[in-house]
Amino acid sequence: MRNLFYLFFILINVQALGVERLVKTDSELKEAINMAKPGDEIVLANGVWNNTEILFSAEGTEKKPIVLRAQENGKVFIEKQSNLRISGQYLIVKGLVFRNGFSPTSELISFKKDAKNLAYNCRLTEVVIDNFNGPERYSPEAWVVLYGKNNRVDHCQFIDKRNQGVTLTVRLNSPESVENKHLIDHNYFGFRQNLGSNGGETLRIGTSHYSMMNSQTIVEFNYFDRCDGEHEIISNKSNQNTYRYNTFFECQGTLTMRHGNETLVEGNTFLGNGKAFTGGIRIINESQTVINNYCEGLTGNRFRGALTIMNGVPNSPLNRYVPVKNSVASNNTFVNCSYIELCAGSDAERSQAPQSTTVENNLFYQSQKAQQFGLYDDISGISFKNNLVNQKGKMPTESGFKLTSVKAERDANGLLYLTNNPDNVGAKLEGKVTTREITGVSWYPKEKDSKAFGIGKVHDVPAGLNTLSDAVAKSKPGDILNLTGGAYQQTKLVVINHTLSIISSKKSEITYENAVLFTIENGGSLLLKGLTMDGRSSLDSPLNSVISTSKYSMNQNYRLFIEDCEFKNLDVNHSFNVLKVAASTFADTISVKNSLFKNVTGSVLLLDRELDDIGIYNAETVIIENSVFEDVEGSALSMYRGGSDESTTAGFLEINHCQFKNVGHGTKNPVNSSINLWGIQNTEIKNSLFVDAKPIKIKLIVGEPSSVVHDICLVNTGKIQVEGEGFSSQNIYESASSCVNGDDGKPLGIIK
Amino acid sequence: MRNLFYLFFILINVQALGVERLVKTDSELKEAINMAKPGDEIVLANGVWNNTEILFSAEGTEKKPIVLRAQENGKVFIEKQSNLRISGQYLIVKGLVFRNGFSPTSELISFKKDAKNLAYNCRLTEVVIDNFNGPERYSPEAWVVLYGKNNRVDHCQFIDKRNQGVTLTVRLNSPESVENKHLIDHNYFGFRQNLGSNGGETLRIGTSHYSMMNSQTIVEFNYFDRCDGEHEIISNKSNQNTYRYNTFFECQGTLTMRHGNETLVEGNTFLGNGKAFTGGIRIINESQTVINNYCEGLTGNRFRGALTIMNGVPNSPLNRYVPVKNSVASNNTFVNCSYIELCAGSDAERSQAPQSTTVENNLFYQSQKAQQFGLYDDISGISFKNNLVNQKGKMPTESGFKLTSVKAERDANGLLYLTNNPDNVGAKLEGKVTTREITGVSWYPKEKDSKAFGIGKVHDVPAGLNTLSDAVAKSKPGDILNLTGGAYQQTKLVVINHTLSIISSKKSEITYENAVLFTIENGGSLLLKGLTMDGRSSLDSPLNSVISTSKYSMNQNYRLFIEDCEFKNLDVNHSFNVLKVAASTFADTISVKNSLFKNVTGSVLLLDRELDDIGIYNAETVIIENSVFEDVEGSALSMYRGGSDESTTAGFLEINHCQFKNVGHGTKNPVNSSINLWGIQNTEIKNSLFVDAKPIKIKLIVGEPSSVVHDICLVNTGKIQVEGEGFSSQNIYESASSCVNGDDGKPLGIIK
Repeated sequence: MRNLFYLFFILINVQALGVERLVKTDSELKEAINMAKPGDEIVLANGVWNNTEILFSAEGTEKKPIVLRAQENGKVFIEKQSNLRISGQYLIVKGLVFRNGFSPTSELISFKKDAKNLAYNCRLTEVVIDNFNGPERYSPEAWVVLYGKNNRVDHCQFIDKRNQGVTLTVRLNSPESVENKHLIDHNYFGFRQNLGSNGGETLRIGTSHYSMMNSQTIVEFNYFDRCDGEHEIISNKSNQNTYRYNTFFECQGTLTMRHGNETLVEGNTFLGNGKAFTGGIRIINESQTVINNYCEGLTGNRFRGALTIMNGVPNSPLNRYVPVKNSVASNNTFVNCSYIELCAGSDAERSQAPQSTTVENNLFYQSQKAQQFGLYDDISGISFKNNLVNQKGKMPTESGFKLTSVKAERDANGLLYLTNNPDNVGAKLEGKVTTREITGVSWYPKEKDSKAFGIGKVHDVPAGLNTLSDAVAKSKPGDILNLTGGAYQQTKLVVINHTLSIISSKKSEITYENAVLFTIENGGSLLLKGLTMDGRSSLDSPLNSVISTSKYSMNQNYRLFIEDCEFKNLDVNHSFNVLKVAASTFADTISVKNSLFKNVTGSVLLLDRELDDIGIYNAETVIIENSVFEDVEGSALSMYRGGSDESTTAGFLEINHCQFKNVGHGTKNPVNSSINLWGIQNTEIKNSLFVDAKPIKIKLIVGEPSSVVHDICLVNTGKIQVEGEGFSSQNIYESASSCVNGDDGKPLGIIK
Repeated sequence: MRNLFYLFFILINVQALGVERLVKTDSELKEAINMAKPGDEIVLANGVWNNTEILFSAEGTEKKPIVLRAQENGKVFIEKQSNLRISGQYLIVKGLVFRNGFSPTSELISFKKDAKNLAYNCRLTEVVIDNFNGPERYSPEAWVVLYGKNNRVDHCQFIDKRNQGVTLTVRLNSPESVENKHLIDHNYFGFRQNLGSNGGETLRIGTSHYSMMNSQTIVEFNYFDRCDGEHEIISNKSNQNTYRYNTFFECQGTLTMRHGNETLVEGNTFLGNGKAFTGGIRIINESQTVINNYCEGLTGNRFRGALTIMNGVPNSPLNRYVPVKNSVASNNTFVNCSYIELCAGSDAERSQAPQSTTVENNLFYQSQKAQQFGLYDDISGISFKNNLVNQKGKMPTESGFKLTSVKAERDANGLLYLTNNPDNVGAKLEGKVTTREITGVSWYPKEKDSKAFGIGKVHDVPAGLNTLSDAVAKSKPGDILNLTGGAYQQTKLVVINHTLSIISSKKSEITYENAVLFTIENGGSLLLKGLTMDGRSSLDSPLNSVISTSKYSMNQNYRLFIEDCEFKNLDVNHSFNVLKVAASTFADTISVKNSLFKNVTGSVLLLDRELDDIGIYNAETVIIENSVFEDVEGSALSMYRGGSDESTTAGFLEINHCQFKNVGHGTKNPVNSSINLWGIQNTEIKNSLFVDAKPIKIKLIVGEPSSVVHDICLVNTGKIQVEGEGFSSQNIYESASSCVNGDDGKPLGIIK
């Protein structure tokens, strides 16, 4: 019967060049691939394909490619432990959706069968990969890996890559993959969260080892939407590649010419919209050409400047920084971009300034203050010509910049251009601005659900035994649980699996019998407001905590907000912490405001679980305001980021108007300090009061950290202990009587 | 219809004192409990009850208890997230089996509803708990917790407790639970694996905080079968308890009078069968009576002696060691027991020797060598009278021991007694020796499946792509995979879920593309023999390894045996390790023999992941023999056990006839040594050769560690660095020319 059906199918498809085979099972698929001849089409039946590992190994011809496609676009789902290998010639894969699973191998879609059998003249088109991630945050997985030559990836849609590993990469690790002339176009690279580690690139071409090979890949008309994985949105690591007409929308990173020469970066659009850490183009190596690009609203500095030209290492090894030479940045437009960084990264190792490099005909347009240029070394090797600025300020050279009052308007694409431009400065991008709509596929959504707090329903939760965990179990993402006052007793863990607010305006006190009260599992985020958490009934064992993350890897970043809360009697046994996180978890934001922590035998915020010293850390932004830490045996805060990696921001901390009294003196306090910061790159501690506390300890490691402590009073508290470069302080008082108000005129410590 | 059925059921049960209600759902159960009157029986229908949390809160009477029972014994299974609370009076729970799940609370069966509503005169009988463990090894969970008074737990069967937390415990944390007179009898306490941490007690009565309260619990006729959780099989922590007629079969620990006075330990049988670390009775505190107990074949020393009388702390706080006083150990029999320990634990803190204590009428029978007594302090406070020894040796006092040649025979229970005993020494246990058969239930097996290597089938595995992982996925526990030679390429993880041997007698080389080749998951154990593992194709990222444990908690101990293997080219990136374990995993044994490790950028055995300093560690026994470590940038071995806990053995290490050449010099070697041992209690390193290696580092912390290094040659290698007490060394040579043979007459280093 089935054979008859096939026969019928073949008969009605005589108009096709080849045979069209509809397959419904893995074995039918395998058989169809084995039988495939030039011109054939293999059609995956609509539905869900679980645990399907496809080896599409076949030989088509230029005129008669072999096609592997979905029966209907967007109706074929590859799920669970699945992957795809493409090997041979003139093969086309089209219309599949990868979701609800992850690859059993480290490459999801690989343009090779094995090291010897690669893909040539093959095409991946209209394929969607949506959150196809393994559970392990730091187990590297790549979604698409190109080997061979003349392959094309187009109109694909890559959304929500969560764990380590590049989204799409071109390899040059054998002679067969060099001068490959791949084309990567019209793809939608969707949201990629901050990985908090190296390995979060969205697109990489080459590796340092093969970076002196020619790749000749063209990357054009792609849309990069909030690709925030790490500093390098794109990491160019080979010669002779072209990046043109791509749009980078609110991406926290840059198009980085990390290795390799003769790159052409032309006609791209970078839109930051003032979002933090958004960057543009970073130049390293030789003979790079950066022309006609448009950058607006980019806020990043250092390695994330709107334009960054780096210092290099003399006789650099392949994996370090080849000095910039014979390069050009011309006819680019920078509108309201915060930083242009020249000779960036200058240090003892990166001592070679750029040479024979030209910066000309660029437009630096600012609505208000002057364009800011960071000069970190000798810029005499950069020739500045005919650049235009519209606000008066300090320029790198007198002669290379013209101050002109200009008039600007927005064009049909929303980009700013000068209405009168006799010097012909800046970018012209008519018809070359890539929009979201022309990328990816039309039949699959580009947006993901919102994860904001407070967008769901409000549910009242009465006091009682396990009423809270019951309510949490029934809640939906974004809901608000309103505790109506009284004693809430938990004998069960309260497991937070999605975004949830737990609030109270009445007196609501939570006690619990386990070692932990709240666990934030993967996908969860928690806001606590107006609650009292009392540890007195908790398990009599060491290492309790009030809140913990999953003990397992979390591949989704979480947020924790604590406001108007009280934590007390965390002292049934030693080392009782408020927040204890696990390795391989990452908080976008931890915010503590107007809260009290009292009688704690452990630490309050323990964000120091990444001890492998490879640049990974536990939290991006930590904000602590107007809060009291009293009788805390461990530290109020311990943050750790080891290693010398420079591909992340390495953490932000702000402490303002806090009070630390008798903090850090416990014999089991491993960091022997009230606040311990190791390798955290950006910190400000201010307007705070320390009484009978252990000292603040700060260790600064790599790059250009900025660590500032000011307007604090240290009463019977040791001096701040600092190791490394990048620290500054002022207005440090050492007795209660000498303290004056803070930098905002308000008293030090908490403000009622 | 259902109501009619009930009615019918009630009618045909008029002969019962009360009503018998068969319930089939959680809500029917709840309703039946609510309706229950004295004399009623609530009958759980045969089958599996998933996610069932039973609150059995009711009021029976002495003559008319309320019964909650299985429809048929052994046919009612409580599974998944389930638990049981008993609250009220005269309630009986009978015939349930808890398996395939774990409690959502930290107490599985709790004799209370909440802190105010406890259980009185209630009984738990013929209930089975089999491997009802949460996945987190170190999240404390207790199986049965007694509150209230006059409760009984009898004929229950507790098998395979895997994670932290006592199996059965009596709490005295409120006045209602003091002088409770509970009875714990005829239970079968089955296999409990070595936890590798404090918190592995099988039975505990009281806590240090309430240890001066009277409990008056009787524990009798129970069978403890291989309860190896930690040093304390039973931890007595309150006054006036009785332990009598229990059998302890091959248990690695002791019946410990840890706190509390006036304990009676009478008529118990301890059978060690020569198994390592088996112990007997340990006396601490005052007015303890140890009479008529029988101990045979116990090998333990220190805190695990057959009889241990400890030193105490003057004016001891509740949670330390109250000095022994007014205690008696009389008429006990010790047959072929290795150690009797007197004044054990004597140190600066435990400086008070026992006082007014009598040791009399005991029989110390040895087949061959003399009974060994450990004397650690002044024993003048112990009065020895009329004890009998049958082998000549050094006794604690001259007068208290009589050397007599005796004749002994075995009685019906297999226990040895003297055929002629005019002085009336030793134990008499006629009719009081508890056998397995009279404990627990008859309708549920007491044994678990064997986990031995090599008991399954042999399967040949051909070379090729992922042939190994395919064969592993199809294998059964105990199978042997025989690699038939050639190149085995893995693009997939090889996941070890059960006991498996992978061997080859031909040349079989395994390469892999991931960051890890083998992962030992929970329940897995791995034996590798005759294989070459080559890291050259593995992922180009730091922290690769050849073998790793689960990244998650493992609640089952694992074993790893490596024999005749070669590991090479582990250098694609930095910090490439051979074995990398995760926290919350525990190896019973790791054994490496006749193997070669060459070109490794990380460490070979990294067993140092438990950094919380609470006495947890990663491996019990590590044996390394006749193996070569060459060009290893990290350490050959790093083992760590922090904290000052004394409830475990804290690890065993033996290194014999090994060769370390150019080991430990990597800049990223965190321990800066070739072998790093921190807090490991029992180590011997001998007959080995170190050339151009970083030094051995040893840190000794707590208790009475024994760390011996002898017959080794350190060529161009730093001196051994030791911190702490308990180290000894001899025959350490410092140049190749001065090296002589080892303690076995063979050359140092590997022996062909």
